[in-house]
Amino acid sequence: MEEKREGVVCGNENIEDSKGSEACRDMKYDRIYNFSAGPANMYTEVLEEIAAEMMNYRGSGMCVMEMSHRSSTFLTIAEEAEADLRTLMGIPDQYKVLFIQGGATLQFAMIPMNLLHHGVADYMVTGSWSKKAYQEAQKFGRINLIASSAEKNYTYVPDCSNMNVSTDADYVYICENETINGTTYCRLPETDGKVLVSDQSSMFLSKPCDVNKYGLIMAGVQKNVGPAGLAIVIIREDLIRSDIAESTPKSMRYDVYAQSKSMHNTPNCWAIYVCGKVFRHIIKSGGLEAVQKLNEEKAALLYQFLDQSKLFSSTVEREFRSCMNIPFVTPTREQDADVVAFARAAGFENLKGHRSVGGLRASIYNAMPKEGVEALVKCLHEYEETHT
Amino acid sequence: MEEKREGVVCGNENIEDSKGSEACRDMKYDRIYNFSAGPANMYTEVLEEIAAEMMNYRGSGMCVMEMSHRSSTFLTIAEEAEADLRTLMGIPDQYKVLFIQGGATLQFAMIPMNLLHHGVADYMVTGSWSKKAYQEAQKFGRINLIASSAEKNYTYVPDCSNMNVSTDADYVYICENETINGTTYCRLPETDGKVLVSDQSSMFLSKPCDVNKYGLIMAGVQKNVGPAGLAIVIIREDLIRSDIAESTPKSMRYDVYAQSKSMHNTPNCWAIYVCGKVFRHIIKSGGLEAVQKLNEEKAALLYQFLDQSKLFSSTVEREFRSCMNIPFVTPTREQDADVVAFARAAGFENLKGHRSVGGLRASIYNAMPKEGVEALVKCLHEYEETHT
Repeated sequence: MEEKREGVVCGNENIEDSKGSEACRDMKYDRIYNFSAGPANMYTEVLEEIAAEMMNYRGSGMCVMEMSHRSSTFLTIAEEAEADLRTLMGIPDQYKVLFIQGGATLQFAMIPMNLLHHGVADYMVTGSWSKKAYQEAQKFGRINLIASSAEKNYTYVPDCSNMNVSTDADYVYICENETINGTTYCRLPETDGKVLVSDQSSMFLSKPCDVNKYGLIMAGVQKNVGPAGLAIVIIREDLIRSDIAESTPKSMRYDVYAQSKSMHNTPNCWAIYVCGKVFRHIIKSGGLEAVQKLNEEKAALLYQFLDQSKLFSSTVEREFRSCMNIPFVTPTREQDADVVAFARAAGFENLKGHRSVGGLRASIYNAMPKEGVEALVKCLHEYEETHT
Repeated sequence: MEEKREGVVCGNENIEDSKGSEACRDMKYDRIYNFSAGPANMYTEVLEEIAAEMMNYRGSGMCVMEMSHRSSTFLTIAEEAEADLRTLMGIPDQYKVLFIQGGATLQFAMIPMNLLHHGVADYMVTGSWSKKAYQEAQKFGRINLIASSAEKNYTYVPDCSNMNVSTDADYVYICENETINGTTYCRLPETDGKVLVSDQSSMFLSKPCDVNKYGLIMAGVQKNVGPAGLAIVIIREDLIRSDIAESTPKSMRYDVYAQSKSMHNTPNCWAIYVCGKVFRHIIKSGGLEAVQKLNEEKAALLYQFLDQSKLFSSTVEREFRSCMNIPFVTPTREQDADVVAFARAAGFENLKGHRSVGGLRASIYNAMPKEGVEALVKCLHEYEETHT
């Protein structure tokens, strides 16, 4: 069954006529600018490499999807992926890197199941995802809500310079970038020496990261890195304990993943392969400093437009604005929907805000080229000119 | 980094000279015959389709890996995959089909966590995988071992026509095809009306299946269907209950998957897409009857060779031999290793038996063409001729 595209595509034949030509990411493949919050746009160069290796990976006679996860060829793929991630982030030796199925949502349970020893943890709730993590954790211990921005609809991050951390807390949990609400931490919380656990899903690899400040970093990869179906967990070795509840499922024990190099059972080999390509691509492109510079430039383009616009406005307090997920609104829901339709007709996909908060949202992850944000700003400007 | 192939490849330039030319699956891509137990060989036609859609899936302007799982395009992919699987297997309406990350190993925990209400289940242990499932289940209730073939090293399936099923058992568990040991059930056990739960991972879609006989069928897809990272669970609706332990992680509740159509969080979209292509391919190729006929022919070729050989022999009692995974041995471990090296030099990969049992093993899943088995038999015959 052929899928019909809504909106205009900049096909090579009708590029001159196309109303949507500004939305065309490239002429070669007619790829579009995709502002999805995740799964999300990937580097075209990475997809080209994957396509080229599909029928026969580097003379192995197989596709990567067909390889035994215990074959030397695949083990090399997995080891290189981990090594490149360690290089990119500067991950210290005393941290393990685990590749785990189930996404960030499974981590919402695995974190308390593995890290609660006194049975107490402190959570900061700054948006939809930290709220979900907080709710899930309550199944496993006494979970304290030590800060929340709920009263202002999660449009800021509470001051965390002097928090009331529980003396018996096993860890302090944050979601460092809220995908739906578009907030991010401009500095990490003071945890009184307690272990800091961070969900970095929607900001992973978006800028340099001092891993030493964390006990555990986890990220679903389907935003800034690869395909859905994989979470990466970076955990300080001393936090991996084997004296946790015996009823813990084998697939939910960090010690099992650490001991087996994430291969106690068959991992998501394909996602590891694709992530490895993205790590390598970022290294070649200048590393996380270069990524950060570009991300800040891209975000500035959109925020500057929103701040001067008479129609559109950012929903997030200036200090806490994410460079990755940028929610914005017009004065009415009706007009929000009209803008989404206008943008879609021009070939921009996935600009509707999350169904839980409405409005619009542009997710501009690492792989979104600057030209994509420029084209979006042009489109929004055109809407404003013609509809006000 | 270029990977070096061990053994000879039938490259187009040197096909005439190549010692390994018989091991070449196709000339176009130099693909080999891959006997891996999983992840395993896939249909070349399916891989070609995937490669062709990589840069722009059917005019969407995106790769499937880049699509929001809630987009209409991806929802259509997922719905068609489920519909095609229902068609293929004739799944009755009162069964749900769930797509769950974590492989069969996570199911070893999810099954008892969701199905134990009286706290009792009966397990048959016929090989490595049912043993692992049995061990994991013990974390969650009183688990009875009602049959085992351990005393004969799992080379047969115990008589299950008149078993001592527990009166309060919530279910009876089997692994219907043991990947490592190469045994399969020639008839399903009599369960005295108790729910039958089957791990079909290494025989899923290998022949027609009367789903009505089961309460739950589960399969990791990385053997007969798609890439690792996805288990398919087919479960009778009345077994999906919401009154299970409140401490059950959200990602381990069948009711959560059933209510959300497997999208309470981002699923392994890529694996669902690839599996859907395989389902469609099998339907076009004549369905499960055609698959079964071919699988039986392929297996017969190898078993007939083994049974007449003076060097090689099958390790499994005749009645219980799998059509999918065929372990075999020479008289000594040294010679087993020598055969593996000989075969590899001729371009056949992954013939070494599982590290837990040794010997050799040929996994000949649906996507292995008959020519691959013929070529393998020829290679083994040549070894026998030249080494005895």
